[in-house]
Amino acid sequence: MAEASAAGAASGGPPPARASLDPLFAPRSIAVIGASPDRRRIRGKILHTLIAGGFAGPIHPVNPSHAIVQGLPACRSVADLPDRVDLAMIAVSPERVPDALAECAAAGIPAAIVFSAASTTTRDGREPLQEVIARIAARTGMRILGPNTEGLFNVAAGVAANFSIVVEDEAGAATRDLAGRRGLSIISHSGGLGFGLYSRVRRAHLPVRHVVTTGNESDVAAIEIAEHLIREGTSTAIMMFVEGFRHAGDFARMAAAAAAADIPLIVMKVGRSAASQRAAVSHTGHLTGADTAYDAMFHRYGVIRIADPDEMVAVAAGFCQPGRPAGKRVCVLTGTAGTGAWVADLCAMQGLEVPELAPDLAAGIAAVIDESGAAVNPIDVTAGIVDDGGVTLAKVLDMLAGATGLDSVILIFSLAPIGRITAFRPVIEASLARLGKPLLFVSQTLPHASNLVALSELGIQNFSLQGSAQALRALEDYRLFQQRWARRSFDAPRPAPALRQGQRFSTHAEQRAALAAYRIPLAAEALVGAEAEAAVAAERLGYPVAVKIASPDILHKSEAGGVVLGISDAAALRAAYRQVLANAARHHPAARIEGVQVQRMAPPGREMIVGGLLDPDFGPLLMLGFGGIYVEILRDTVFEPVPLGLNEARDMIHRLKAVRMLEGIRGEPPGDIDALARLLVDVARLLADSAGAIAELEFNPVLVHPAGAGLTVVDAVMVSRADG
Amino acid sequence: MAEASAAGAASGGPPPARASLDPLFAPRSIAVIGASPDRRRIRGKILHTLIAGGFAGPIHPVNPSHAIVQGLPACRSVADLPDRVDLAMIAVSPERVPDALAECAAAGIPAAIVFSAASTTTRDGREPLQEVIARIAARTGMRILGPNTEGLFNVAAGVAANFSIVVEDEAGAATRDLAGRRGLSIISHSGGLGFGLYSRVRRAHLPVRHVVTTGNESDVAAIEIAEHLIREGTSTAIMMFVEGFRHAGDFARMAAAAAAADIPLIVMKVGRSAASQRAAVSHTGHLTGADTAYDAMFHRYGVIRIADPDEMVAVAAGFCQPGRPAGKRVCVLTGTAGTGAWVADLCAMQGLEVPELAPDLAAGIAAVIDESGAAVNPIDVTAGIVDDGGVTLAKVLDMLAGATGLDSVILIFSLAPIGRITAFRPVIEASLARLGKPLLFVSQTLPHASNLVALSELGIQNFSLQGSAQALRALEDYRLFQQRWARRSFDAPRPAPALRQGQRFSTHAEQRAALAAYRIPLAAEALVGAEAEAAVAAERLGYPVAVKIASPDILHKSEAGGVVLGISDAAALRAAYRQVLANAARHHPAARIEGVQVQRMAPPGREMIVGGLLDPDFGPLLMLGFGGIYVEILRDTVFEPVPLGLNEARDMIHRLKAVRMLEGIRGEPPGDIDALARLLVDVARLLADSAGAIAELEFNPVLVHPAGAGLTVVDAVMVSRADG
Repeated sequence: MAEASAAGAASGGPPPARASLDPLFAPRSIAVIGASPDRRRIRGKILHTLIAGGFAGPIHPVNPSHAIVQGLPACRSVADLPDRVDLAMIAVSPERVPDALAECAAAGIPAAIVFSAASTTTRDGREPLQEVIARIAARTGMRILGPNTEGLFNVAAGVAANFSIVVEDEAGAATRDLAGRRGLSIISHSGGLGFGLYSRVRRAHLPVRHVVTTGNESDVAAIEIAEHLIREGTSTAIMMFVEGFRHAGDFARMAAAAAAADIPLIVMKVGRSAASQRAAVSHTGHLTGADTAYDAMFHRYGVIRIADPDEMVAVAAGFCQPGRPAGKRVCVLTGTAGTGAWVADLCAMQGLEVPELAPDLAAGIAAVIDESGAAVNPIDVTAGIVDDGGVTLAKVLDMLAGATGLDSVILIFSLAPIGRITAFRPVIEASLARLGKPLLFVSQTLPHASNLVALSELGIQNFSLQGSAQALRALEDYRLFQQRWARRSFDAPRPAPALRQGQRFSTHAEQRAALAAYRIPLAAEALVGAEAEAAVAAERLGYPVAVKIASPDILHKSEAGGVVLGISDAAALRAAYRQVLANAARHHPAARIEGVQVQRMAPPGREMIVGGLLDPDFGPLLMLGFGGIYVEILRDTVFEPVPLGLNEARDMIHRLKAVRMLEGIRGEPPGDIDALARLLVDVARLLADSAGAIAELEFNPVLVHPAGAGLTVVDAVMVSRADG
Repeated sequence: MAEASAAGAASGGPPPARASLDPLFAPRSIAVIGASPDRRRIRGKILHTLIAGGFAGPIHPVNPSHAIVQGLPACRSVADLPDRVDLAMIAVSPERVPDALAECAAAGIPAAIVFSAASTTTRDGREPLQEVIARIAARTGMRILGPNTEGLFNVAAGVAANFSIVVEDEAGAATRDLAGRRGLSIISHSGGLGFGLYSRVRRAHLPVRHVVTTGNESDVAAIEIAEHLIREGTSTAIMMFVEGFRHAGDFARMAAAAAAADIPLIVMKVGRSAASQRAAVSHTGHLTGADTAYDAMFHRYGVIRIADPDEMVAVAAGFCQPGRPAGKRVCVLTGTAGTGAWVADLCAMQGLEVPELAPDLAAGIAAVIDESGAAVNPIDVTAGIVDDGGVTLAKVLDMLAGATGLDSVILIFSLAPIGRITAFRPVIEASLARLGKPLLFVSQTLPHASNLVALSELGIQNFSLQGSAQALRALEDYRLFQQRWARRSFDAPRPAPALRQGQRFSTHAEQRAALAAYRIPLAAEALVGAEAEAAVAAERLGYPVAVKIASPDILHKSEAGGVVLGISDAAALRAAYRQVLANAARHHPAARIEGVQVQRMAPPGREMIVGGLLDPDFGPLLMLGFGGIYVEILRDTVFEPVPLGLNEARDMIHRLKAVRMLEGIRGEPPGDIDALARLLVDVARLLADSAGAIAELEFNPVLVHPAGAGLTVVDAVMVSRADG
């Protein structure tokens, strides 16, 4: 069960045992099954790209009708392969894929890439190819990438096992440019998008370690690849394009490993819209999953979710800069005041600060820049800074090096002139090295490639205006995540559950008992079966009271006329008792009636909703939101995976956009936020312990009383999974 | 006064008479004052760029010490110029600028561009150069661009009167590429950003008509230039980068002309953040103005406000495509399903629709595409469509041509292969021409330049993933604006104002009278001066009543303890009367007390706020928002310039994010939206008629009763400008 493994992962359970992915990523020898001399065909392209990429080990084309293919001696069949082969690249026609895989397995080849397209459904009732392949992988232990993949590119090892046009002619250059450094890795369901991202990353002169496109994921899926790359430890960041995770339950374990290794996950997940869900389903059979659940998991595990490839490249570039900002205070240093103002606005829109300069810093800068400049932040050093070959720029950078209260620098000047950075480098390099805070270049004009190359030799990049702000925002978000992660409390040891395995909550009494076991502060009440009994209960509870119908068949009591509030005496109580029964009978004549609840009216408080739902991918999720009309108008709800600790609970409360309503505005007293946090922890524990038995839970309203006065759960609905 | 001219403009007043800008934009001959042989200096660059750009008329360098400059015979002084000169380009040192301008004026030169930097302030109390230049322009009638400008580029006429590195070597190519067509025009305060935008537009292979960078705007400012270009009529759209408008009162007239000419204004205005406001002020002395007012004006006049240069170029490209979409329903047609899903999400995030396909259309498409594709929207035609040279693509496009229910097409496939579009063109060109809806290309990989050129020959462009959605969103916004514009009601003939010129509203009675004259439905009330009188008034009004202190010195009555609500009998009334007077005396002992208001308690209603404020650039603005705690939490307020008609008032109401609270949710009756719209029209008329005499107005709360029952203005505060 997904929820069980997610929970297990959070507490550090081991991954399931599967054969290593090493032969896939770092094969010593490769066979190309169906290799063609025709480089226009995929079967020819994969061989050509592999050769052009400079793979160092033996390459064996397998082709029954050519002795030589693209200059290499070919084998007639898999059985004829001369020595041990680690990886088979398979681009035969789809109907021949199962036989080819079986032959490879028989020859002891431990890994394969299946480029061939594969249907997710068939029109004639045959088993779809992607399921056939999954069965072969399970039976033989062979690790299979694909089908329907564009392949992978292990840049450092020169394994260009793909047919991407953007790799074909420049695989060798990519390997040389990487020069063994750490770099970005890309994992994508979509081949076009994965290698499209690769081409953008390369244009930005960023180092790349791996590109892996996973296609239909019959066997090897994105999460396992990410785990492999995290263990390998050479990735600066991992960029993922996913339609949904095939083994979502493994997500938490993988993401926790990434957090521990300080390798940010920069993820585009489609599926925010109905249309993209249609596309994903019909494409690879992935269900995109509930976006809410993904957002909750991504928040917990610090995944940086982005919306656009350009943003993704900018954010990735931010993590490739030397050093990370210690906060969100940006100094904008510009040769063109207009662009400086624009970038300042973009920073503000990303939640960053562009603070005023300290007076002594401002005075120091004013003394070295032109009179027509401005020693404020953004610092306008005027276009004149390009005329002195970098001397003024170096002086200003040195002043910023000593400045506290600034965490990063965006430096704006034109990189259009050929060779500008090469010319400046001797003058500014030492100042850049001393700066001690990340510096992002922004060119208001299109940069000339010579400057991008020269910058990348300094280990820094050029950003678009928007990109610079997006990158700094992501760096700040990730810094805050790592702080949150360091004091995480959700994986504390758990007490024994107060629930029986598979427990159901059909009756009012069962629900009350389960909630009481988890310390949920329900309004004081009594369940009664007669009018006179109701009056006695009300007397004991104390007026004013409320009266509610209790029936497992009536979940929405108010709409059934099953609720009367604010009853202040016995006569009104008796009338109300009769009324809710009559209304219930009219509303739902066949409803099983357990009785009538007499409940003490709670003191006033801020109306909240606390809920739980069961996500098919990630298991139980906890929900918090403002109640009443706010829930419909504000749509101000937040979700967290369960369990959680007090730190996550407080974080959850503070993620509410309207949190100020709880903190007290207009002279109202603040609400009891501590009590609300404790409730969230307890409800999350209940949901986690239920292991999926609770399909839905809603406390609505939860009245949060003034600080110190606790809260009251006025109404609680629980639906067992079997009930749904 | 700004507000007066804004109001005048809305009703179509004529522009002030100034000499034409023709000599600036289309000079027949040009003198370059201070022209240098050294092309590394600005004085040399401007001459070189002008020559390289292929200007057809005579060019006269003016240089006292060289007879020949860059191959052209030079004059020793302005007085020696041989024939009539239309335009002087001036790049002398700042202190020599006034003399140079005076000499040009004496020689009858009607226009000048001052490239020299100019201080906005001086350290020694001298008059800043930009003000000296403004005086010269006013005195001589000469039209002066700058100072501190990077110049302009009239592409069609080959007037490359600038020193931008991005123009220098390719001015002639830009003129050839334009080939006399309509194109984009760029107006920017910032030279760096203006020509930076130009370089981006050129890279996107979009036609450019004009680039004008205005610098400090001593004389010629952005709005007048825009009016000139609108009259000229060759601009597809006008892209503006502004820090704020120097003659903001002229904005409405200019923008109305743009709307009438169907020339969209795509504007980046900085000043959303305090930091960018600092930058703008110290740069050119522009005050960026209140962002709220700009947003209100931009909404009314259909200005497309964007946040980033890349977005600006994408939106501009959208308007350069042949045809405009008739709605927001997008068909995504993709060779790579992953990218299709991503684009569908991006479209949804922009408020566009990616609807399901009609069944017959889906069946038709399914019949021609590969089995592994998908005939849903996004339509996955699979990477196979690139293998048949466009035959399948043409078939699908022809089916989409006939499809109703789809307004535009985004076509995704890789433009990385050299010559792909050239190869496809013979096969798909006729289908593209027949399509009848805009088609935007998106390449998931970096496009090869050959394909961009081939596309631009077809009059279409390649977009980034995000850019395609941003462009379609802007096209839809502009379509909706043009609909709104066609039925605009704000410029209907106005009745005579009910206000006296310069009327003040200091006393309670004056305020009540003014509001009554504008039919504002105030709660029934009486102003009384004695306890007994209060009781009589309450009896007449009918209990329950409220009692409020009336004092011009106490604006926030509640906080002064000056309000008691829900008084239901005479005894409580008398107590309340004494209490508000006592509280007021304690709160503000010196306050002038006009008496005590006795007001009938209004029936319940949705609490709203209606307000007015006086913007220094644009004059009075009307504000609408939800009241109570909503105003603080939701920050859900909208602004409109005044006056307005019922159409704008209804639009204003529907721009509220929480408009559903007025429309009725959870079984509550809908509010009287018609009455609210009428109130907005009346308050807007009052603000407009006051011509700035009302500095601030706040009706809070306005209780909007159920539909048909009207509304009640419970409390009204008006502050005269002189009072502030």
